[in-house]
Amino acid sequence: MERFAVKGIFVDTPAPSTLRVRDGYMLCEDGRCGAFTESVPAGVPVYDHSGQIITPGLVDLHLHAPQYSYCGTAMDLELLDWLQQYTYPEEAHYADADYARAGYGYFVRDLQHSATTRACIFGTLHTDATLELMHQLQTAGLSAFVGKLGMDRNSPDFYREPSPAAGLAETRRWLDTCAKEQMLHDGPVRPMITPRFTPSASDEYMKGLGELAAEYKVPAQSHLSENPSEIAWVAELCPGTKYYGESYSRYGLFGGDVPTVMAHCIYSGEEECAAMKANRVMIAHCPTSNENVIAGIAPAAKYLRGGWRIGLGSDVAGGHTLDLFAVMAAAVQVSKLRWRYVDQSEAPLTMTEALYLATVGGGAFWQDFGEQVGLFEPGYAFDALVLNDSALHNLRSFTPAERLERYAYLGKGALSAKFAQGKKLF
Amino acid sequence: MERFAVKGIFVDTPAPSTLRVRDGYMLCEDGRCGAFTESVPAGVPVYDHSGQIITPGLVDLHLHAPQYSYCGTAMDLELLDWLQQYTYPEEAHYADADYARAGYGYFVRDLQHSATTRACIFGTLHTDATLELMHQLQTAGLSAFVGKLGMDRNSPDFYREPSPAAGLAETRRWLDTCAKEQMLHDGPVRPMITPRFTPSASDEYMKGLGELAAEYKVPAQSHLSENPSEIAWVAELCPGTKYYGESYSRYGLFGGDVPTVMAHCIYSGEEECAAMKANRVMIAHCPTSNENVIAGIAPAAKYLRGGWRIGLGSDVAGGHTLDLFAVMAAAVQVSKLRWRYVDQSEAPLTMTEALYLATVGGGAFWQDFGEQVGLFEPGYAFDALVLNDSALHNLRSFTPAERLERYAYLGKGALSAKFAQGKKLF
Repeated sequence: MERFAVKGIFVDTPAPSTLRVRDGYMLCEDGRCGAFTESVPAGVPVYDHSGQIITPGLVDLHLHAPQYSYCGTAMDLELLDWLQQYTYPEEAHYADADYARAGYGYFVRDLQHSATTRACIFGTLHTDATLELMHQLQTAGLSAFVGKLGMDRNSPDFYREPSPAAGLAETRRWLDTCAKEQMLHDGPVRPMITPRFTPSASDEYMKGLGELAAEYKVPAQSHLSENPSEIAWVAELCPGTKYYGESYSRYGLFGGDVPTVMAHCIYSGEEECAAMKANRVMIAHCPTSNENVIAGIAPAAKYLRGGWRIGLGSDVAGGHTLDLFAVMAAAVQVSKLRWRYVDQSEAPLTMTEALYLATVGGGAFWQDFGEQVGLFEPGYAFDALVLNDSALHNLRSFTPAERLERYAYLGKGALSAKFAQGKKLF
Repeated sequence: MERFAVKGIFVDTPAPSTLRVRDGYMLCEDGRCGAFTESVPAGVPVYDHSGQIITPGLVDLHLHAPQYSYCGTAMDLELLDWLQQYTYPEEAHYADADYARAGYGYFVRDLQHSATTRACIFGTLHTDATLELMHQLQTAGLSAFVGKLGMDRNSPDFYREPSPAAGLAETRRWLDTCAKEQMLHDGPVRPMITPRFTPSASDEYMKGLGELAAEYKVPAQSHLSENPSEIAWVAELCPGTKYYGESYSRYGLFGGDVPTVMAHCIYSGEEECAAMKANRVMIAHCPTSNENVIAGIAPAAKYLRGGWRIGLGSDVAGGHTLDLFAVMAAAVQVSKLRWRYVDQSEAPLTMTEALYLATVGGGAFWQDFGEQVGLFEPGYAFDALVLNDSALHNLRSFTPAERLERYAYLGKGALSAKFAQGKKLF
């Protein structure tokens, strides 16, 4: 049994509005948190980060690995045009194994050095490239659900599966390979059924993906109610559905027995919101992306305070950064603009709530698979970030809450160390 | 005559929607740009930054130096509460010379290492602390207009000038000292008349400040139409004014003969906008601050495209960062939310327009004092930033425009070198 202790100022959020601060030693046993103590038992090795803020690892509920290569460019279009002009051509490159290895190499290197310890990740249509991504993430010591994309309509010929049957056959081959490699239900990196979004998947394909999710007992992810034009399009494509979410739920891809992450949920109406809550759909709130692709501002404060399941997503490359601390700050910022311009019924998010979203909120998705994530509590996965904020020091003294806030907002700090499931990544 | 050349990929904006890219040598003679050439004349020393993007130095039209110490904290309040609870207590510390020296020491160190080469800066009420700040900025090689704040009402006793007469006497002492030290009209660091904002300055004080601006021939700066509650308050405080701007213009502090920077201008109505344009008032657009203190989103695209004078401000510490590249990205982002939620009559800002705002736009303020700023053109001040984006490389090749965009959005680059008026700062 591997056992060590870490010394520092541990900051976490047992409740959305509670920032807990404890200065001392956290024991780590076999990848999980043990007791918090004020002194360390004899013989236990210590990583001494005295005086440094230590937060739980951050959870990125939504990002597109192949888009990382152009992250921070092409920020001049709305969603649907952006997909056609930038996204599809780039993702198509991942048919090439060398390109995929190199592209995912940069992505995984940077994700490993980021604040993210766990993520739900979209790949491309390509089974082999998606397996390559999964292997690299595993080697890097990260936890992730990864999706081979499903897409058989409304994209250019060069980047579309030729038929629902072909797409489903590839998806099955991918899941079978995962099973063979012990990645289906075990290990830190696992598959997730991933129709890109309703406009990209025909009814027959969506139905087949729902059946595969049930058959292989794997979770699902997709996009929901991101943009008014997209929502209008889905209504056209899916006659008989009362709201966008039904285009997933009618095929068993909307929570319930198939734990599901839905990105965005900006314009979800009452019925859709009720269905998300009833089915325990996990909302991935992606504030940076929602600005960049001119989507809008999701009612994240309402979701968090009203009992929905919600975490944060970087949504690279709609989002311009992998850095979830920056995404936390953006979540607070856009919630203020929402308050000012859209709806004053909920006060803006606080930084404590943003940390909750990025740790306990998103971490809750792993609970559906038997892992506790997002707090420094006995039994929780020991995912931890040691924040080096020495570049931010000045003549004032700051509370730990203020140091966290400055670290998130100023973006000029660095990580001294990162632990994922008790393994020190650097 | 000091003469050298810099080699690199020079990127600037001769017009708001024109990104000019030139790979070669820029000559620098006595602090100013000379010719752009493809080869360097014999005997001229060269700073070789081949392959690196070089932009003009960025201009920060609005920030509060004493607030830098708590930058990135206290982000949970609206403007007026934020001032009372955080700002005034901190600024009051600058009565103490040691505190001022240390506090401004951190500020100037970080400003010197930032992307900013020129700025319009608010100090505190204190004449001596303001002179300390001016001296430090001069030593650091930066260009700035700096204001001793004027404030004789609506703040706590511990941070308010006792009477208009006392405030005006201190302002005169400050301007006389500047004159004695050859800082009034010469040198890179000069004074600027600075009533905090109308709620802080009585009519008598504002009138006196206007007279001093005219007498000493110095420019002015203040805040305008930032927040609905503030605007309502100004209307109450200034019966007879038709709009907020009149509370300044009736005392000669609104452009015209006294070049004036007004921060924010989010809610300026038609008459106020017309007066700003007629008087050549320079608008400091502060998108990060406007999010953080829940102010709103200024119509920056309208101002830029409609013939107003406008540049960018970090507005530290309403703004959470000194980094004007981050402010450029935020300007683009919030303009998208404005398009989505407030007004679709102007398309969102582009990154090229954001660079224009941060260089030519803000730089135009120095034109009123005989300096050309913001372009790589013969006769312009040689203010330049060499961008080190090596941390952002991946398997793709990027155009210079894309490299600039990634540098601004990702926030993970660094400056290789910085020149201000032809002096290499690092």
